[in-house]
Amino acid sequence: MIYIQQLRERYQLTIGYLGTIVIGIGIALLIPLLIVPIYKGEVEQIKYFLIPSVFSIVLGYIIRKANLDKEATLTLHEGGVIVVFAWFITIIISATPFILSGQLNFTQAMFESVSGWTTTGLSVVDVTKTPNTFLLWRSIMQFLGGAGLAVVMLSAIIGPHGLGLYNAEGRSDKLLPDVAKSTKLIMTIYLSYIVAGIVLYIIAGMNWFDAINHAIAALSTGGFSTKVDSIGEFNSVAIELITIVLMFLGTINFAAHFLLLKGEIKRFFKIGEIRFMFFILSLAIPITIVIALLGIYNTLGKTIRVGVFELVSALSTTGFSTVGYEGWPSFAIFIMIALMIIGGGAGSTAGGLKQYRVYIMLKSLIWNLKGYLVPRNTVRQEYVIRPEGKYYVPKKHIVEITAFATIYFIVYVIGVLIMLAYGFPLQESMFEFASTLGTVGLSVGITSPDTPVLILWSQILGMMLGRLEFFVFFFAGVKIIRDTKLMATSFKR
Amino acid sequence: MIYIQQLRERYQLTIGYLGTIVIGIGIALLIPLLIVPIYKGEVEQIKYFLIPSVFSIVLGYIIRKANLDKEATLTLHEGGVIVVFAWFITIIISATPFILSGQLNFTQAMFESVSGWTTTGLSVVDVTKTPNTFLLWRSIMQFLGGAGLAVVMLSAIIGPHGLGLYNAEGRSDKLLPDVAKSTKLIMTIYLSYIVAGIVLYIIAGMNWFDAINHAIAALSTGGFSTKVDSIGEFNSVAIELITIVLMFLGTINFAAHFLLLKGEIKRFFKIGEIRFMFFILSLAIPITIVIALLGIYNTLGKTIRVGVFELVSALSTTGFSTVGYEGWPSFAIFIMIALMIIGGGAGSTAGGLKQYRVYIMLKSLIWNLKGYLVPRNTVRQEYVIRPEGKYYVPKKHIVEITAFATIYFIVYVIGVLIMLAYGFPLQESMFEFASTLGTVGLSVGITSPDTPVLILWSQILGMMLGRLEFFVFFFAGVKIIRDTKLMATSFKR
Ligand SMILES: [K+]
Ligand SMILES: [K+]
Repeated sequence: MIYIQQLRERYQLTIGYLGTIVIGIGIALLIPLLIVPIYKGEVEQIKYFLIPSVFSIVLGYIIRKANLDKEATLTLHEGGVIVVFAWFITIIISATPFILSGQLNFTQAMFESVSGWTTTGLSVVDVTKTPNTFLLWRSIMQFLGGAGLAVVMLSAIIGPHGLGLYNAEGRSDKLLPDVAKSTKLIMTIYLSYIVAGIVLYIIAGMNWFDAINHAIAALSTGGFSTKVDSIGEFNSVAIELITIVLMFLGTINFAAHFLLLKGEIKRFFKIGEIRFMFFILSLAIPITIVIALLGIYNTLGKTIRVGVFELVSALSTTGFSTVGYEGWPSFAIFIMIALMIIGGGAGSTAGGLKQYRVYIMLKSLIWNLKGYLVPRNTVRQEYVIRPEGKYYVPKKHIVEITAFATIYFIVYVIGVLIMLAYGFPLQESMFEFASTLGTVGLSVGITSPDTPVLILWSQILGMMLGRLEFFVFFFAGVKIIRDTKLMATSFKR
Repeated sequence: MIYIQQLRERYQLTIGYLGTIVIGIGIALLIPLLIVPIYKGEVEQIKYFLIPSVFSIVLGYIIRKANLDKEATLTLHEGGVIVVFAWFITIIISATPFILSGQLNFTQAMFESVSGWTTTGLSVVDVTKTPNTFLLWRSIMQFLGGAGLAVVMLSAIIGPHGLGLYNAEGRSDKLLPDVAKSTKLIMTIYLSYIVAGIVLYIIAGMNWFDAINHAIAALSTGGFSTKVDSIGEFNSVAIELITIVLMFLGTINFAAHFLLLKGEIKRFFKIGEIRFMFFILSLAIPITIVIALLGIYNTLGKTIRVGVFELVSALSTTGFSTVGYEGWPSFAIFIMIALMIIGGGAGSTAGGLKQYRVYIMLKSLIWNLKGYLVPRNTVRQEYVIRPEGKYYVPKKHIVEITAFATIYFIVYVIGVLIMLAYGFPLQESMFEFASTLGTVGLSVGITSPDTPVLILWSQILGMMLGRLEFFVFFFAGVKIIRDTKLMATSFKR
């Protein structure tokens, strides 16, 4: 009975923390209103943000007051529970402006909200008819869901010494000893990149509104665009180059940025995951261009531009595009699918299996083969270079990564099967769900306002599983069910 | 220098063993001629078998005489080298009847030969125009490549305590302490099954020639048929049922047969891999029928018949079919692809990743998830049931299986890309190469006499890698290259 009592108190504490998060969302909802003085025609949009904002702030305040408010450190388990609860509240509140304004129905609004917060960038809105306040709100969700939620919630609440899955993702704790300090540092770095991106975009010819939205979307590997044809609308080499750089910066491990910024370029390029990323691209880009893309575009220059941009966008899981893929041969589409499944850097805002995991699996394969060739008592040098230095890879680490890859493929296959069951072709289904689960956001057309509701919901779930990492979900889910049962049982007595 | 001398002697010994194998192939080439007295019209085919047969026997005899002939036990490494050399000689000699008779060109003949020996069953011959002696020769290759080569060469030469890959495949050594004895036992069991299959087929209405060929092809999970429409040609429920049972028997681990035959049915159904196989089928068959196949065939009965037969054929990697897949929705095709990639039982003549490996990966995932839920110092019960009993799975075992799965996927992706580069659609390419690498033999049409030569050769390589297991190949290849260099260097001095 004492345990049950404790459990209740802990949950009250957990809910108290949730209150703070809800207040935060309420404040975030006010940000899009900052541009109303400039776009005066959007005055009537104010209420769609103000109502949920006030509601959230009041609700959050009540939640916090009604529950324990004293300082206390959360345990690992509680951190997981908060993350899941916070996500549900966050995405529902974030969907309300779309619903209130009548632009989207509930499912579509939830889809857009989840796509934003997970930095996926798949969309069911028509950007040509969407007010600028809403376009900015989409970008804010991506920023908070990327740098914000990733860093603040996952790092600060679950903690850097938490779950094995952190280890499995190759986060680099040693470089970031102090969570609060490093969170601040990461946010500073991110904001600096974004400001730099905005300035460069404006120099390259974008207007300030497009520049803000695209810089945020590129760096958070989000990929929402204010244009129907995404980056392709600008048809500018300079803008494409800026975007490619921002996408790279967005998809790189936070810890690797420290090396970059400290000017330790040599150490930066020794990181296994970084080398692996450039290895993949230097293999995939020329092959795809030569075998599949030659002859599709007028000039060789255009072909190379397209090949580089789309493949970087896919691997970094950003999801910007400069062309449509209707005329692309299956060869190129298959390469894109493979890159989207591999995904971006570990410890970044990107999605997918993560380059680090794939790299470890390939390394493990090589170690395995070598194992047959050297005498049994040879000392093995089974390490990889991570941002913080050499890391000797234990078998347990490989087993955890395998578990992750296994569940990733299972969810992928189920997602594809759901699309197939609705009669979509295999190639399109494989592309679209790889894009969904990898939080990439590229589309070959399955995702639209007319998409069957069940597919949209399977995509919502896929994006969340892909972004939150399955184990957090599983972990918190089991704890919530267990605790609920326990409390319910004690209540009956 | 002493080492070099020894190395030469060892290679002479290895080559001596090869001589024996070449003589064996020469004798096998005579078997199809046994039916000439019955099919008298095929007298003129005799020379196409007799010439390579005599050539092989003489060549084998010379090889054996010219090299050391004394008794000696081969080491592990030499076993691997023999397997690879023996395969190359075997498939070349086996292709000659097709070339001599002018039925196929060199590439096609090699394809047919490799397809037979690897028990794949993809074919570039037109069975309606192929003499019976050649049809029987195809079945004999499957029998020898299945039960014969698998058991005799891999078990006897490499030995049951050999390579880690054996362990990785979950071979059950404890049940089979004596290699020679167990080889004999396995051959006896196999031949009994085949005889039983022939008798049942004849009772069900097949003629004796079709019965022989189909019984062999089913049990060796080979899938070559004497009919264009494979088992579908007979349109008989009884024949389909017999075939399903034979396919199951063919795809089950050798060691599991011992339990079956000893009447230990309960223990048999406790084997993890067996339960997993039935689990997959009991999930995949009803889902595929309900979602994808309803309405395609006239009656519900026919639909169920087709669903069960094709899915068992795919998972067991046999490759018989009763229908074409032109009208099948992508949902069903995708399920078939997944089943072909999973593949048959470990320690059988089947191909694919192997059910055992997939089972271990899923178990590992479950153990991983459980690991987050139980206190850290809890004693874990991480074992699976193999035919010989409980097996506590070490992390090393899981890492080896992961390495295998990784290389399997890499080869699969490359194979698919080659087909895509020739302009074949994604769905067809994924199906055809899953079938190739898994030595299944089902086709959606890419494999034909008109297939581009490069694709045929990539399939030849795929079938061999799929059948021989990558590590044997790699292992022997590296040894041969190293030793050759060593001997060449010593020669220069
Ligand atoms: K994205
Ligand atoms: K087969």
